[in-house]
Amino acid sequence: MSTTNFALFGAKPAFDKPLPIGQLYFPSWQRYEAAFHGIFERQYYNNNGPLHNKLEEKLQQFLGVQHAICVSNATIGLMMVADAMGLSGKVILPAFTFIASAQSLTWAGLKPVFCDINLATHQIALDQISGLIDKDVSAIMGVNLWGGSCNPKELSKLAAANGVQLYFDSAHAFGCTVDGVSIGNFGDAEVFSFHATKILSATEGGCICTNDENLAERLRSIRPSYGTDNPVSIVRVANARMSEAQAAIALMSLEDFPENQKNNETLYRYYETQLDTIPGLHLVRPTGVSFSNYQYVVCSVDEREFGIPRDLLIEILKAENVVARRYFYPGLHRTIPYVNDLSYYQDRLLNTDSLCASCIQLPIGALVTAQSVERICNILIQAHQSSAEISSRYEK
Amino acid sequence: MSTTNFALFGAKPAFDKPLPIGQLYFPSWQRYEAAFHGIFERQYYNNNGPLHNKLEEKLQQFLGVQHAICVSNATIGLMMVADAMGLSGKVILPAFTFIASAQSLTWAGLKPVFCDINLATHQIALDQISGLIDKDVSAIMGVNLWGGSCNPKELSKLAAANGVQLYFDSAHAFGCTVDGVSIGNFGDAEVFSFHATKILSATEGGCICTNDENLAERLRSIRPSYGTDNPVSIVRVANARMSEAQAAIALMSLEDFPENQKNNETLYRYYETQLDTIPGLHLVRPTGVSFSNYQYVVCSVDEREFGIPRDLLIEILKAENVVARRYFYPGLHRTIPYVNDLSYYQDRLLNTDSLCASCIQLPIGALVTAQSVERICNILIQAHQSSAEISSRYEK
Repeated sequence: MSTTNFALFGAKPAFDKPLPIGQLYFPSWQRYEAAFHGIFERQYYNNNGPLHNKLEEKLQQFLGVQHAICVSNATIGLMMVADAMGLSGKVILPAFTFIASAQSLTWAGLKPVFCDINLATHQIALDQISGLIDKDVSAIMGVNLWGGSCNPKELSKLAAANGVQLYFDSAHAFGCTVDGVSIGNFGDAEVFSFHATKILSATEGGCICTNDENLAERLRSIRPSYGTDNPVSIVRVANARMSEAQAAIALMSLEDFPENQKNNETLYRYYETQLDTIPGLHLVRPTGVSFSNYQYVVCSVDEREFGIPRDLLIEILKAENVVARRYFYPGLHRTIPYVNDLSYYQDRLLNTDSLCASCIQLPIGALVTAQSVERICNILIQAHQSSAEISSRYEK
Repeated sequence: MSTTNFALFGAKPAFDKPLPIGQLYFPSWQRYEAAFHGIFERQYYNNNGPLHNKLEEKLQQFLGVQHAICVSNATIGLMMVADAMGLSGKVILPAFTFIASAQSLTWAGLKPVFCDINLATHQIALDQISGLIDKDVSAIMGVNLWGGSCNPKELSKLAAANGVQLYFDSAHAFGCTVDGVSIGNFGDAEVFSFHATKILSATEGGCICTNDENLAERLRSIRPSYGTDNPVSIVRVANARMSEAQAAIALMSLEDFPENQKNNETLYRYYETQLDTIPGLHLVRPTGVSFSNYQYVVCSVDEREFGIPRDLLIEILKAENVVARRYFYPGLHRTIPYVNDLSYYQDRLLNTDSLCASCIQLPIGALVTAQSVERICNILIQAHQSSAEISSRYEK
C-alpha cells in the first residue's frame, strides 16, 4: 500500500461515516416504544419512579450487592460518596483517569493527591501509595480502568493498614468480577457510570453501590435535594435523581448485558489477534479480573518500533473515519486547577506522562463489526509498513 | 357542616385520589410519541443534541436573552454559576427559599449569609441587605419567589453600590416579566428550574440565562465534564448536560406555555375570589412583575383569625386528598449544616420564622379544575366555620 491509499493523503476513507469509540448499545424500537409508552401512561417521570426502583432491585441482584443507589450521572455519584463518607483533607487517586474522578473531590471540598500508575496494567501503582499518605489523607479512591481492576483486595489491605477509607471510581467496570465477586462490592462504596459509551447504558446516568447500611441511608438522603427531615445526619444535599427515561434504557441494557459483553469480547479477541502481530502497538489487557466487560480497546504506541508517532496515527485513523483518540490526555496533574501544583508532581508521575503521550483508544461496541476491526487493523498494519514514507510525506 | 363531614373524622374524602401540588403539564401521547420516536431514530440521546440546541435557541428567543444554557437541573446550574462568576467567601440570599439555593453555595465552597424577608411579598427584605455586607461578601443571590420578583432593578443598584456581584435563583419565575423585560435578563445570570412542578417542564432540568458573553463561554465549558481543551479559563467542570429526553419535553412545554399560563391564571383568580372571603387566610400576590406565570398558590394562615393552626389545616386537607404542604419549612438557617450558626441568626430572621410557621401551599396546575378549586375553598371555609368544634374534637 502506497501512501496514496491513505485518506490522510486524499484517498477515499475506509469508512463512509465516522465510526464512534463508545459502546452505544441501544434497544430495538419495539422495546423502546413499549418502555416510553409506559412512562407516558403513568405520567411518572422522575424521582424514585417505578422503573427506577425496579432498576435498583435488578442491579442489586445482578451485582450481589446490598445497595445500588441510582444517580443522574457518575460525577455527582462520586461527589455524594465523598460527602456521605465524611471525608476531609486529601484523597489519593491515580493521575491517569477521567477528569471527573478528581473534579468530584474538588466540588466536595477535598484536595486530590495524584499517584502514578503501573505502565503494564495502567492501574494505580500500589507500591507508591503508602509514600503519599500523611495525616491529612482521609481516603484512597481506587479507579478500575479499561474493564480491569486496580486490585481492590490489595488496596483494602493498604487502606486498612494506613487507617484511611477506600472507595472506587468503577465507571469502566460494570459487570466485571474479581475472583468471582462483582466489582461494586469492594471498599466502602463504588460508583458506576451508565453513560452511553459504557456497556450498561442509561444514555447518561450512574449508580453508587455499597454494602454499608448507614452509608446507603446517608446517600439516599443526600440524593433528592429534600429538606432536613432526613432520617440520618447528612451535611449536604444534591439533586442527583435518576429519571424514568434513564431507568427505562438502563433496564433494557441490563437485560442485554450478557449478549453485549459477548459481542465486546469477540471484537476484543479479533483486535488482540491482529494487534499482537504489529510491532510497537501494545494492547492493554483487562488485568486483575476474573471476568471483564471488554468495553475498551486501548493500546500504547511505541513510536520507535511502530515508526509513527501516536498523534499522527490518530490523524491517519481520523481521516479514515475511525474516531480514535488519545485517552486519557493530559494527566490530571496537568489540568486546571491542579496544574497550579505541577512543580510538586515534577518527576513523580513519569508513567502517567508516558502513557498520556502514547495511548490510543480504538472503537468497540454496537456499531463495530468483525469486518470493521479487520479494516482498522489493516490500516494500522499498513501504516506501520509505510511508516517511513508516511512520515516523510506528512512533514512536507 | 358538622365535623362529621370532614374526612379527618372519618367521612369520605372530597377527592378520590391525591390532588398534587405542582404544575405537571405534560404533552399528548401523539406529540410525545413523535418526539421520542425522533430521538430513537437519531440514536442521539445526550450532550448538545439537536433537540437540546433547538431548545436553547427557542428559549433565547422567548426570553430575549443572549444565552440560555440548558442544564440537567437547577441545583447544578446554581453551582456552576457560582463557580463561573469566580465568587469567593460569602453570598447573601434569603432564608426563606428552597434548600438547593443555599446548598449550591456550599457545594461551590461558599458560605451562605441568610437575609430576612418581607412579610407581605415573601421576597428578600431589600432594606436588610446592606447591613449584611462585609469584605467577605462577593455576591447577592436574589430569589424570585411565587411567580413574583424580588425587585431585580433595586437589587442591581444595591449590588453596584456595594461592589458585589448579583445573580438570581429564578426557579419559580419562568415566563414572568418586570416592566415588560423577561426575568432571565437581570444581574450577571439567572437560573430557571424546569422540574415537572414548574410551568416550563423538562420533567427535571433547568437553564442558566446570561447576557454576559464571557460568563456564557465559561458556563458552556464547565457543563460537559470534558478536559482542559476549553477556550476559556475555568476552575472546575461538572457533568450537567441536558438529555434529549429532557429537551423534547421542554420544547413541547414551551409551545404550551401561553395556554398553561392562562389556565394557571384562571385557577389563581378562582382561588383569589374565594380565599379573600375567608378570615385569617392571606393569599400572597405575585408582586414586582408585569406578567406572572401564576404557578403557585401560597397563603399564610393567621391562626387567631382563622381559628385553626396551620399544621392542623394541612392535616384536614390531606385527609380530603388535597396535597397541601407547609412550604418552605423550615427556614434555611434551621437546616443542616447551617443550623450550626443558629445563635448568630437569633432574632435576625423573625419574618422568615413567622412565615415558615404559617405558610401553606395549595394545588394549582394541569390536574386542578375550577371545580377542584371550589371544593378546596369550600373545605377551607367550612374548616373556618367549624374551627372551634374541629379543634376541640381533634384534641380529644
